[in-house]
Amino acid sequence: MITKLKYYTFAERPGDELHLDCGRSLSPVTLAYETYGRLNAAKSNAILILHALSGDAHAAGRHHQEDSKPGWWDNAIGPGKAFDTDKYFIICSNVIGGCQGSTGPSALNPATGKPYSTSFPMITVRDMVRAQKRLIDHLGIETLLAVAGGSMGGMQVLEWTICYPDSVRAAIPLATTARLSAQSIAFNEVGRQAIVSDPNWNGGDYYDSAAPATGLALARMIAHITYLSDESMHNKFGRRLQNRDNYSYDFITDFQVESYLHHQGESFIRRFDANSYLYITRAMDYFDLSSEKGSLKKALEGVKARFLVVSFSSDWLFPTYQSKDIVSALRKNNVDASFCEIASSYGHDAFLLEVEQLSPPVSGFLDSTFKGATS
Amino acid sequence: MITKLKYYTFAERPGDELHLDCGRSLSPVTLAYETYGRLNAAKSNAILILHALSGDAHAAGRHHQEDSKPGWWDNAIGPGKAFDTDKYFIICSNVIGGCQGSTGPSALNPATGKPYSTSFPMITVRDMVRAQKRLIDHLGIETLLAVAGGSMGGMQVLEWTICYPDSVRAAIPLATTARLSAQSIAFNEVGRQAIVSDPNWNGGDYYDSAAPATGLALARMIAHITYLSDESMHNKFGRRLQNRDNYSYDFITDFQVESYLHHQGESFIRRFDANSYLYITRAMDYFDLSSEKGSLKKALEGVKARFLVVSFSSDWLFPTYQSKDIVSALRKNNVDASFCEIASSYGHDAFLLEVEQLSPPVSGFLDSTFKGATS
Repeated sequence: MITKLKYYTFAERPGDELHLDCGRSLSPVTLAYETYGRLNAAKSNAILILHALSGDAHAAGRHHQEDSKPGWWDNAIGPGKAFDTDKYFIICSNVIGGCQGSTGPSALNPATGKPYSTSFPMITVRDMVRAQKRLIDHLGIETLLAVAGGSMGGMQVLEWTICYPDSVRAAIPLATTARLSAQSIAFNEVGRQAIVSDPNWNGGDYYDSAAPATGLALARMIAHITYLSDESMHNKFGRRLQNRDNYSYDFITDFQVESYLHHQGESFIRRFDANSYLYITRAMDYFDLSSEKGSLKKALEGVKARFLVVSFSSDWLFPTYQSKDIVSALRKNNVDASFCEIASSYGHDAFLLEVEQLSPPVSGFLDSTFKGATS
Repeated sequence: MITKLKYYTFAERPGDELHLDCGRSLSPVTLAYETYGRLNAAKSNAILILHALSGDAHAAGRHHQEDSKPGWWDNAIGPGKAFDTDKYFIICSNVIGGCQGSTGPSALNPATGKPYSTSFPMITVRDMVRAQKRLIDHLGIETLLAVAGGSMGGMQVLEWTICYPDSVRAAIPLATTARLSAQSIAFNEVGRQAIVSDPNWNGGDYYDSAAPATGLALARMIAHITYLSDESMHNKFGRRLQNRDNYSYDFITDFQVESYLHHQGESFIRRFDANSYLYITRAMDYFDLSSEKGSLKKALEGVKARFLVVSFSSDWLFPTYQSKDIVSALRKNNVDASFCEIASSYGHDAFLLEVEQLSPPVSGFLDSTFKGATS
């Protein structure tokens, strides 16, 4: 599947700005997005996929035949897959605040002609969704068949069902939470501290000089540990040594797990912007659906979508109890909510990896929603 | 209880060096230590307390009446406490490689007259124990009534029973493991990367200039998250804001948990040496009792001490299954091993905090060992 990154720019005129939770606004706003499959004539088969912290619009396929890797959820999106492009029209856009084509801190501030850097307004998960709604409107889609995503993508799923209850038939939040825990805020904060402590960060003003690659790599290494589980790290690396039979008794890389983490850090700095990392993790910190109306039940009162909530047994970043809290609040509002905990040793990353287990419930849920929508 | 830091220097003469696992040796070696209570005439009531990564010899009491804080395990050591100084003679020494009085990378290398820095030899947990044995010999104690400690202290407990089976009657490893997991190695490695990425680290050569405080604080913040639990962080901080009613929509400290972490980082840099952090975490990485003889059971074959192994239910750094592995291997060797999992929400730090729950099994175990030794 050869796919193409497209761009939609909006909020260009005064009075049409994208208003943000922080009280400021953005103008203009560009969203990078991709689509897979075909929108049917009734425009009733559109599914919006929402990406996680480090994801982007390139969810499936390859941009070029020779690309070594396909999009980040290619195992779940395509002909005959969980999100079946023979049936559905799939959309995925890069979040605002991001760095892979959508407007974020590395974009040019039209007022200055220079990158926004830390003058970029603080964004929230709800702001990301507000921008996506403009894209969906632009595509002429009144009602999405479904919104689906894992981790921060799941947070966007929840915001979609709250902010635009009439525009979403079904919601699939995976490996996510209705509010970020103290532990997750703590991990985000040490990642941010790693970035801002890098002398190259320079108060965020580094687009004309060396990027804070060391700090960003460190932030990624910290986060990456939280995406795996004790068991998956044991299975994948154990205490195996890297290209040696004995301890070095030195500070070089002795263990495979160290080498793997270094590799994760190094490959991340080639594709991600440090300021985007600061903004997006902050947006996650601020995510708490219960705060605005006093309880999660109240926040979900107006929801009309049906739900399939999925957690993964070894996910300790967004543990199953957090998904159960969502299901419980939905059911108190008489929302049709199915819940599924998938047994997996992969930790938080399971939502990207356990596609074989994920496919049957997801495709069944989508099919029955689609039948209900068209019958 | 007013206590005093003492020093014992040994391995001063050629031929008397402390030989290390890495193949190198140290000479001379100083151990900082403290003692509480009185050694009885039979020298049968001595208990050696082993400290964790960031601990030191000052386990109990105060050095001066006006000290704001007592030693790190003061709630467990003292008259009538779990380690009852009315009955027992308690010893605690700073590990080699440390920075609180014992010989470590910040000590002067007699060959150069300058701090060892990274020319300090790599040390192992077994090397720490070898040095402690010299101190115990010096104190004229042939057999310790018990060795006890949590986390890395528990690793030292295990090494004591293996290396000096005739010198230990009872062993109390708490919140520990027989081999460091891939996940724990990963957390140690990102902490080390934070330190060596700090420009002030300067290849380890910073004793005449500014210390790599930013990197060390970051390493401590990362580690500190692993010492707590999701539940304890929720109970202690939740999503409460720090001195404000609303989000700042800025990168300043919004959440109490962020403020707490910053405080942990800042207070750590006042008392700890970055190079010691590198050496001691590496010693933990290298800890794997099963590797030398092929299995944990074989490693524990010669053990003569009786055991009380304690884990804590919410400790995800050294989870209960790791303590059970120790108990299982001991029992296969017909070693008298009791096991106790203490229900706690405090995570790994529970071994320092759950003293009320810890006291009855510990004092009972010590009393029965002491009766057995003197009857």
